[in-house]
Amino acid sequence: MSDLRKAYKNAGVNVEEGYRAVQLMADSVNSTHDANVLKMLSNFGGLYDLSELIGEEIKKPVLVSGTDGVGTKLKLAFDTGVHNTVGIDLVAMCVNDVLCHGAKPLFFLDYFASGKIDAEVVAEVVSGIAEGCRQGKLSLVGGETAELSGFYADGEYDLAGFAVGVVDKDKIIDGSTIRENDVIIGLESSGAHSNGYSLIRKLVFDKMKFGVDDESLGSTIGEVLLSPTKIYVSEIQAVMHAVDIKGMAHITGGGFYENLARFLPEGLDAVVNKNSFVKHNIFNLLQTWSEMSDEEMFATFNMGIGFAVVVREEDADKTIDILDKLACKSYKIGKISSGDKKVVLV
Amino acid sequence: MSDLRKAYKNAGVNVEEGYRAVQLMADSVNSTHDANVLKMLSNFGGLYDLSELIGEEIKKPVLVSGTDGVGTKLKLAFDTGVHNTVGIDLVAMCVNDVLCHGAKPLFFLDYFASGKIDAEVVAEVVSGIAEGCRQGKLSLVGGETAELSGFYADGEYDLAGFAVGVVDKDKIIDGSTIRENDVIIGLESSGAHSNGYSLIRKLVFDKMKFGVDDESLGSTIGEVLLSPTKIYVSEIQAVMHAVDIKGMAHITGGGFYENLARFLPEGLDAVVNKNSFVKHNIFNLLQTWSEMSDEEMFATFNMGIGFAVVVREEDADKTIDILDKLACKSYKIGKISSGDKKVVLV
Repeated sequence: MSDLRKAYKNAGVNVEEGYRAVQLMADSVNSTHDANVLKMLSNFGGLYDLSELIGEEIKKPVLVSGTDGVGTKLKLAFDTGVHNTVGIDLVAMCVNDVLCHGAKPLFFLDYFASGKIDAEVVAEVVSGIAEGCRQGKLSLVGGETAELSGFYADGEYDLAGFAVGVVDKDKIIDGSTIRENDVIIGLESSGAHSNGYSLIRKLVFDKMKFGVDDESLGSTIGEVLLSPTKIYVSEIQAVMHAVDIKGMAHITGGGFYENLARFLPEGLDAVVNKNSFVKHNIFNLLQTWSEMSDEEMFATFNMGIGFAVVVREEDADKTIDILDKLACKSYKIGKISSGDKKVVLV
Repeated sequence: MSDLRKAYKNAGVNVEEGYRAVQLMADSVNSTHDANVLKMLSNFGGLYDLSELIGEEIKKPVLVSGTDGVGTKLKLAFDTGVHNTVGIDLVAMCVNDVLCHGAKPLFFLDYFASGKIDAEVVAEVVSGIAEGCRQGKLSLVGGETAELSGFYADGEYDLAGFAVGVVDKDKIIDGSTIRENDVIIGLESSGAHSNGYSLIRKLVFDKMKFGVDDESLGSTIGEVLLSPTKIYVSEIQAVMHAVDIKGMAHITGGGFYENLARFLPEGLDAVVNKNSFVKHNIFNLLQTWSEMSDEEMFATFNMGIGFAVVVREEDADKTIDILDKLACKSYKIGKISSGDKKVVLV
């Protein structure tokens, strides 16, 4: 080892392990690339050729971008040693947001930081990010693996993701065409997704240990809580192809209230029927343990609905049929009525 | 306080403080927006209208993106309580990379994570990000402020950034036109920028305490080490307007060797004269303390040159003149010669 490598290692930075992580993740990363990813001489940054997409479908390109992390759900990966699914959560949290404006997802970048790079763990995490990118039809064009000595506890890390999509300026979906009597269709979630985990972990720790089965869940609570966030790209693209979607919401932190309110124009309410869909059993357990009211539960969790679209009343059944064929259960969870831009639970 | 707010606060998440941070940062964020940032009904994600830029200047748009963090330089912000400059570093690390391909910077997103949100600290950090965006001509279109209870030590945080630019496909700068006898111009850095800080902090702690003056530096070593990374957008845009730039390199971790090698085509070397420019005094101190060789120093630090461009020999003086007028000192630091794609220090 050179003096420099020794000096760096003494300072808490292992340069070789970083290079080894890059090698281990190469196949995963390449598996996500579509034909528009340009390979250049240099190996930093990402180059994505937009010119092929501009024409009939997209005349006036508007770039839609979003960033997010996985939050304290990461602690479940640390506890269980399962590192290949939180990357799916990372992509999901970003791309489901970008999707809400009607954008076609293009590319993704990730930031991974830990106190000490473990190349195998990094490669596992990136394999999950790559899986998320394949599900979300994004090319993983760049990333940063940062070794921050003294920032993170042993075996822990943080993740941030960035997604970019494109939409024609004249086709941006922003809720402005929503009218009274339009129907809100809710698409099933895969569980708690990536929100509310500080609260969830506290409740679960208070009431039971991870790994203990609860018969209502059908698997261990650790498995249920770690199940990756659903990515809605294929489903929404299929619906958009056939139906005029007027508004969309990714149900994240802030639950139904904050997220459905985003697409509401002035003078209209979203009225959600809380008994219109099958709740994921995890939320029944959490509500029992926390003694939170229905209103508080719906203000915090997705309750079993991870994404919502607003369509004309006459398009509602067709929308549900399309989603059924893609094995995505959906429900008429509410409707639009006159009001003052609020979400009402009935 | 509602039961929900209480439950969340008990679980280590302070929802109100997050909202307060958003309010405090609003003016900074808005100060970065150019006319292409679209304001929509919803307040998440960023919408950037590319259509106005497509035409004469950019016919075939290629999106260039990069992500990075500030690394352990953040510890200096924690130690000194100065939080309004690391955001400049964050933007610099990302946008100087994007610049290397000849791209026009468009927009930026940030990710801020800490164990407990302190709205004032977040707003300070974001004011630095906004300052970096103004210097780098980027619109700050989105961000995430994450409260991850149990992930970070009290008063500490991590930052990740994400920059997107656009370049015409036929005008991408990638080093492929570099020929023998082309000249490498080095642009002065503002200090150590954001690389090598694990090593720097160890050396400084071993040899002296922060806050102690060293007469060769002209200010305290804490101030020198915290000085923000230079953003080269204005300078490079001015040069690109007048001169055919053939290759560019942002001198970051890996120093001269790794970064100058990125633009080299097959069959050519970059020969750098290590005495051709004024080294920043911090590097003389670090070399004395570390007893590292010149080769090791140049493989780790920017040594006083934060960015390099390759131009024809006959364009070299003109390039330096343009940079001089923008108060950016630059030097002919080397030239291109036949070889095998390596960087040689003479």
